[in-house]
Amino acid sequence: MDTTEFRRRGKEMVDLIADYLENIEQRTVYPDVEPGYLRSLIPEEAPEEPDTYEDVVKDIERVIMPGVTHWHSPYFYAYFPTANSFPAMLADMLSGAIGCIGFSWAASPACTELETVMMDWLGKMLKLPEDFIAGTHGQGGGVIQGTASEATLVALLAARCRAVRMILASDPQRPETGITSKLVAYSSDQAHCSVERAGMIAGVRMKKIPTEQSDKYAVQGETLRRMIQEDKAAGLIPFYVRTEHTHPLLRNAEKIWMHIDAAYAGSSFICPEFRPLLNGIEFADSFNFNAHKWLLVNFDCSTMWVKKRSDLIGAFEMDPLYLKHDHQESGRYFCTDNSLFRSLKMWFVFRIYGLKGLQDYIRKHVELAKEFESLVRADQRFEISADVVLGLVCFRLKGSNEVNETLLKRINNGRKIHLVPCLLSGQFVLRFALCARTTESRHIREAWQLITQLAEEVMQELPH
Amino acid sequence: MDTTEFRRRGKEMVDLIADYLENIEQRTVYPDVEPGYLRSLIPEEAPEEPDTYEDVVKDIERVIMPGVTHWHSPYFYAYFPTANSFPAMLADMLSGAIGCIGFSWAASPACTELETVMMDWLGKMLKLPEDFIAGTHGQGGGVIQGTASEATLVALLAARCRAVRMILASDPQRPETGITSKLVAYSSDQAHCSVERAGMIAGVRMKKIPTEQSDKYAVQGETLRRMIQEDKAAGLIPFYVRTEHTHPLLRNAEKIWMHIDAAYAGSSFICPEFRPLLNGIEFADSFNFNAHKWLLVNFDCSTMWVKKRSDLIGAFEMDPLYLKHDHQESGRYFCTDNSLFRSLKMWFVFRIYGLKGLQDYIRKHVELAKEFESLVRADQRFEISADVVLGLVCFRLKGSNEVNETLLKRINNGRKIHLVPCLLSGQFVLRFALCARTTESRHIREAWQLITQLAEEVMQELPH
Repeated sequence: MDTTEFRRRGKEMVDLIADYLENIEQRTVYPDVEPGYLRSLIPEEAPEEPDTYEDVVKDIERVIMPGVTHWHSPYFYAYFPTANSFPAMLADMLSGAIGCIGFSWAASPACTELETVMMDWLGKMLKLPEDFIAGTHGQGGGVIQGTASEATLVALLAARCRAVRMILASDPQRPETGITSKLVAYSSDQAHCSVERAGMIAGVRMKKIPTEQSDKYAVQGETLRRMIQEDKAAGLIPFYVRTEHTHPLLRNAEKIWMHIDAAYAGSSFICPEFRPLLNGIEFADSFNFNAHKWLLVNFDCSTMWVKKRSDLIGAFEMDPLYLKHDHQESGRYFCTDNSLFRSLKMWFVFRIYGLKGLQDYIRKHVELAKEFESLVRADQRFEISADVVLGLVCFRLKGSNEVNETLLKRINNGRKIHLVPCLLSGQFVLRFALCARTTESRHIREAWQLITQLAEEVMQELPH
Repeated sequence: MDTTEFRRRGKEMVDLIADYLENIEQRTVYPDVEPGYLRSLIPEEAPEEPDTYEDVVKDIERVIMPGVTHWHSPYFYAYFPTANSFPAMLADMLSGAIGCIGFSWAASPACTELETVMMDWLGKMLKLPEDFIAGTHGQGGGVIQGTASEATLVALLAARCRAVRMILASDPQRPETGITSKLVAYSSDQAHCSVERAGMIAGVRMKKIPTEQSDKYAVQGETLRRMIQEDKAAGLIPFYVRTEHTHPLLRNAEKIWMHIDAAYAGSSFICPEFRPLLNGIEFADSFNFNAHKWLLVNFDCSTMWVKKRSDLIGAFEMDPLYLKHDHQESGRYFCTDNSLFRSLKMWFVFRIYGLKGLQDYIRKHVELAKEFESLVRADQRFEISADVVLGLVCFRLKGSNEVNETLLKRINNGRKIHLVPCLLSGQFVLRFALCARTTESRHIREAWQLITQLAEEVMQELPH
């Protein structure tokens, strides 16, 4: 395919994409296929001779679409939002064409520099403390990661490195493996499974901090303090805490790395009314959230800030000759991995929406969640299972887990809307997450009508 | 920006990209900017109100392009190739619009399934042993990773997990940290710095296997055997070897995980004449190469196969309720991370080029490398520093490192072509890597003319 054909095919693809997103409501949000469905639809081997482009495009509807879970349908309320906006898609097209790999400043200066500046822009939108802003002379700054899981792991490894160095500084003879085996990290029992996995990867103990429904599942400083004291008394070395909120406990002289992960909620902090949720951030060492969830910047764009860039650089630095360049010392940027030009997406989105446009978008989702909440509260058969703070409503039928499991199964088998569950204090709960950019009030009301209708059926069938 | 505007802007962006790639030769391949150049060109904060799209597009030339290292210019011979093809870009556009996150089968069945089948297609193109193919009933199979570094780490962690389990099976009372601290992994001293980093992340010893110029820098079985024996005698537990080639030594009953990383060379194995480089692969546990380097599939697409999917699943599995779905057991796919629909790129590229088209592309680059090699060999002042097997020519001026460093600096400061160096047995060597899809014989000859001209200048200035 040459440039001339690309001009034609690219424009056709733009229309195909626009058509897909314009008419996405009419598709079945949750696909009705069995595992293995796709293999039988295509050849067992790649073709020797080229297929025609027309055949490939035809196969999008024949092979791919029947198996797609449409995350951007306004009937998708499962998992969490993942961003999808036109400015981000345009930037991604450009990024693909430039196709540079940004593993060092010299490998493409614009790539590294725009990332640093865009992370400053975003940090300022969030009103992060000055310590986290790179600016011209700052020691802190931001870097884009692929996922919040990656950021959790990166922070954990940097913390491990710092802890080991601090101990070796005072006790140079101590063997490093002896230190690592004593290290202990902490994380809320409500945390994503990837946090546990990060501990496993880094080969350090990861303890879960128990939380209670009565505390809205937030980690309590007292609980954490007690765990840390007990562990210290047992000869262990507490070195890392990862939570969704800051902790007064750690404002003191404890030399424990505090990583705040606001994967979903983080985007909302650009609105003054939600910014208090981030209070205390000045005591954290690192902060992360996924701009690719709720800030209209397509995946992947997990934004992470640290107060000391040197903590990250120090933990990962390798300096082979083939990556050296003249500006090695002056341009003290840090890129932890190979990556494309991801900051272009931020730049396009921030400029084309403007801060106000982004705030409007966040607020609209929160309002829709409130609307759904009031529909649930108005129905005596249902209960709200956790405070509705942003765009997620956790709710259930009053009654057994079984009846709720049956209801959810019925909802997803209907394939008109899509939800997933969670467990809160042993209770099976339905999660209604505001996800699509194009969700409107009418979709919410339609979804609720469907849920209540199915609930009625389920309650009539099952004994109470 | 609504769908109507996207139709217009998307088509403009297609033309912008086509123009960029059509005229890329006329740009300075290696940018002439100082660190920090970009910050002063744009505002310090994101705009409150939206900017116009026209302003954003204008800034591509004003702000971005002056700082771009043009990896797809036919004058770019630095680092390694990174793929850039029109079919892959079209697939990426579609992938961005579907925007599904494929962390489980149910999260988008098409995404998981196409990946499994495309990895089979590619595995068959490479004539991988049947063990590595998933098919309908196989125990092995492939998965896309972001980078070869990621694949190295994933294999290392799976190997660590398998080693610890094997030891615990025979000695259940042994503390796990006691095992980890005895584990030892091996890697060639020629390996990428990310291998060392993988050892650091996983918290295991990573020993470098010394190699010699006389062995063409390939790991020698005898050297490795001796290291393993010595380590065992010292009470350590050898558990992982990562190299670029297979090792007869490990064909025996050693329970050591063998990971073969052919990051760059792997793409060439689709040509029968280069496939012998992969002989012995039947004895490996995992194999990886970067289709995003040389197989026309845009970044990121690092393709990794294992003989036992259960080794990977077992090492990373977490089963929270919110990821459970009805087909949990039947659809035993594995995705090690959140990711977009990356296999669409493979599907588009394999079909629109066909196996023959891909083979032609590889062969063209190898021929161009041979052409450059013969230009070097024909000039008595220069020497070839390593066998030219595929698309990389390592060469130098006969003489001191200093004269070669000066020559390279002169080349890059000229900014007409771009190369980076490497060290081979203490010698400073210039790497001439065939990178761009559009490089032709005339570019090679032009590059050589420039190099010889600068070499003459340098040799006249510097004492011999």
